[in-house]
Amino acid sequence: MQKILIQLDTDSNPSVFDRVVAIDAGADQLFSYGSIAPDHVTELVHGAIFTRGPADLKNTAIFIGGSSAAAGEALLKKVTGTFFGPLRVSVMMDSNGCNTTAAAAVALARRHHSLQGVQATVLGGTGPVGLRAAELLACEGAIVQLVSRSKERAEAACSEIRQRLPDAQLHSVGASADFNSVCAESEVVIAAGAAGICFLPEAALAALPGLRVAIDLNAVPPVGLADIGVSDKAQIRGETTCFGALGVGGLKMKVHRRAVAELFAANDVIMDTMAIYQLAREIADAVS
Amino acid sequence: MQKILIQLDTDSNPSVFDRVVAIDAGADQLFSYGSIAPDHVTELVHGAIFTRGPADLKNTAIFIGGSSAAAGEALLKKVTGTFFGPLRVSVMMDSNGCNTTAAAAVALARRHHSLQGVQATVLGGTGPVGLRAAELLACEGAIVQLVSRSKERAEAACSEIRQRLPDAQLHSVGASADFNSVCAESEVVIAAGAAGICFLPEAALAALPGLRVAIDLNAVPPVGLADIGVSDKAQIRGETTCFGALGVGGLKMKVHRRAVAELFAANDVIMDTMAIYQLAREIADAVS
Amino acid sequence: MQKILIQLDTDSNPSVFDRVVAIDAGADQLFSYGSIAPDHVTELVHGAIFTRGPADLKNTAIFIGGSSAAAGEALLKKVTGTFFGPLRVSVMMDSNGCNTTAAAAVALARRHHSLQGVQATVLGGTGPVGLRAAELLACEGAIVQLVSRSKERAEAACSEIRQRLPDAQLHSVGASADFNSVCAESEVVIAAGAAGICFLPEAALAALPGLRVAIDLNAVPPVGLADIGVSDKAQIRGETTCFGALGVGGLKMKVHRRAVAELFAANDVIMDTMAIYQLAREIADAVS
Repeated sequence: MQKILIQLDTDSNPSVFDRVVAIDAGADQLFSYGSIAPDHVTELVHGAIFTRGPADLKNTAIFIGGSSAAAGEALLKKVTGTFFGPLRVSVMMDSNGCNTTAAAAVALARRHHSLQGVQATVLGGTGPVGLRAAELLACEGAIVQLVSRSKERAEAACSEIRQRLPDAQLHSVGASADFNSVCAESEVVIAAGAAGICFLPEAALAALPGLRVAIDLNAVPPVGLADIGVSDKAQIRGETTCFGALGVGGLKMKVHRRAVAELFAANDVIMDTMAIYQLAREIADAVS
Repeated sequence: MQKILIQLDTDSNPSVFDRVVAIDAGADQLFSYGSIAPDHVTELVHGAIFTRGPADLKNTAIFIGGSSAAAGEALLKKVTGTFFGPLRVSVMMDSNGCNTTAAAAVALARRHHSLQGVQATVLGGTGPVGLRAAELLACEGAIVQLVSRSKERAEAACSEIRQRLPDAQLHSVGASADFNSVCAESEVVIAAGAAGICFLPEAALAALPGLRVAIDLNAVPPVGLADIGVSDKAQIRGETTCFGALGVGGLKMKVHRRAVAELFAANDVIMDTMAIYQLAREIADAVS
Repeated sequence: MQKILIQLDTDSNPSVFDRVVAIDAGADQLFSYGSIAPDHVTELVHGAIFTRGPADLKNTAIFIGGSSAAAGEALLKKVTGTFFGPLRVSVMMDSNGCNTTAAAAVALARRHHSLQGVQATVLGGTGPVGLRAAELLACEGAIVQLVSRSKERAEAACSEIRQRLPDAQLHSVGASADFNSVCAESEVVIAAGAAGICFLPEAALAALPGLRVAIDLNAVPPVGLADIGVSDKAQIRGETTCFGALGVGGLKMKVHRRAVAELFAANDVIMDTMAIYQLAREIADAVS
């Protein structure tokens, strides 16, 4: 029986990126839909769950993508709410790569430095990747600063995380300059800001002697942490292990492919932020 | 040579249901198009008939679907009108499952009770499934009552059927209550009304001693015949053999898959109401 | 690793014709997009080049099609401009079949008559096929008349060709009647006008004693050269070897399929007018 992946994309052109990865992950057939809104979901999901017998439903799965993580989350909620009883299929959400990127970044940080009780900072923490990175760091026991230019938006992001992780040690910081001071006590820093924003200028790392892991997720110059190269992959700079966007990208791609493949292991897999992170940890640890 | 099925769907999102069934029926490649209107057909059909040699054209076929049977019929007419000489491919029309559902229902009725000369009633007979069920019953020699709330619409549906089956013994009935009286003389009753309409309340079957086969095609409660369970599959209740929507669904799915598979047997198969019904009869009879 | 062809079509329904040929040419997966404009290209191309490693990129390729050759050329320019360094995939442009048709026509003309220094005329030379046929004839050393009803448009087409082939021996002719006189000195004539335009009426060939090869690319009657049958394939009529649209079509289809297959030989193949013509020559010569 062929493995069918139904791609629900919130953008008008369903992502080529997600399609190529789906094929390379082992999907035999891709049904790709663009401009998908929650209103379309019921009909599409019914087509997925009413066509094959319960024992065969593990060969059908749903992938949710698009450039907006909020739109993707809304689809995920609607999709899972349409299932009932054994009539369900596995589903993954990774709009704009937010889950696989955040998972890969935190899994790499954890592999190179214990996160338990450690102070960690996420610069640009209110975007889809930054918010998820902060959540995963908190989940690993780190004491997390979530930084945004707007203190208000930073606090809103923290509130969202606390709803899922009530015990998170999480602090919102509003800052638009002097990020060196913000990061002064941190052992781990992840930069997940928008393109074009440089948080730490050249030579900043040398002024942060406590910093053990620094990760910059921006692939387009100017990068967010000027001392880091886009291709840095566990590059030691002073006392700091550094990763650039391409250095994280290898693991991210493995996680993305593996997460899609796992959808077909059963008919009730939910590949959300936490499940994708578990995979990222396993893959990162297996490499070492 | 790969088997290509071109899915022309009149809705904006081409049906996932039809796509999964197509793959399970053996199509190797699906070309799916949404929002298709008759104006688009010429270009699409030319692409189908001008690309492979006549001997290979049986490996290309067209499936017409969508939520509107009328829109689907219009496409079917345009598609078959675009063929010329040996330059044609097989085509199936099953918008909203109208043909496969009606065919499965009538084939099951026939398997459990002779239809020749028998009085049969279709409740909700003006919708796509009801109209086709009435036509197939008449084709088998039954004396058919086609029932609708509007006598006018019931008569229009009968006229449409008589254009294809001039000898049909077919009567239109306008009724919005007291369906027990309407069905009093019938040995076969098929309920094909819209969701939420209950024609025969609980215990009605016991008051219809002549009824031998009762089929309810509504899967969502309240069902159309309250005595019938959604999963009834040749369930004997009193003197009546009963089928619910899921009880018909198994055969419907087999018919749908087999009909798609048959498209690739030659390049001139037309899977319309009658051809799909022939398949349903063969499959229903093979099971017994 | 599966061969993925990304079809970027400028029309709303991605061409069925191009999809069938792509599958028959060996593509394993087709990602088909309609209504594509240059603005969409960056995102789509990034998805193609950032998903597989450099060594595997030859298994991903792009096909540009649609009914407008100008729109297709604009996409081709944007697509190739988005590549950088080794991050590129092969790409073919054949909007409305313009490149494969012109290439097949000129390759057949060349196979039956030397083109070097020979006078050749393209009737209807400003359309996508005619312009490319004139360019390829000039490239083979013919002295080409490019004929259009509008002298101005004919000259514009010549200018466009001269930008790519500065040494082309190319003359623009404005003519809306008496095409016999226009063709009087020509040994090769290709008719590539719009449907319904007849350039040379019946018995015109007999009045052109120097004509050695005549090709009419119009498949729908009235054809452009009335003496030629749509199915003529190297049909000798008097002193002239004749080809009709279907007679050229066989080679055109072979060239189209082979060009798609060649995309997967490396990750930097550009199947444009000249590259497609080289293939057409090879295939035409291999047959003889």
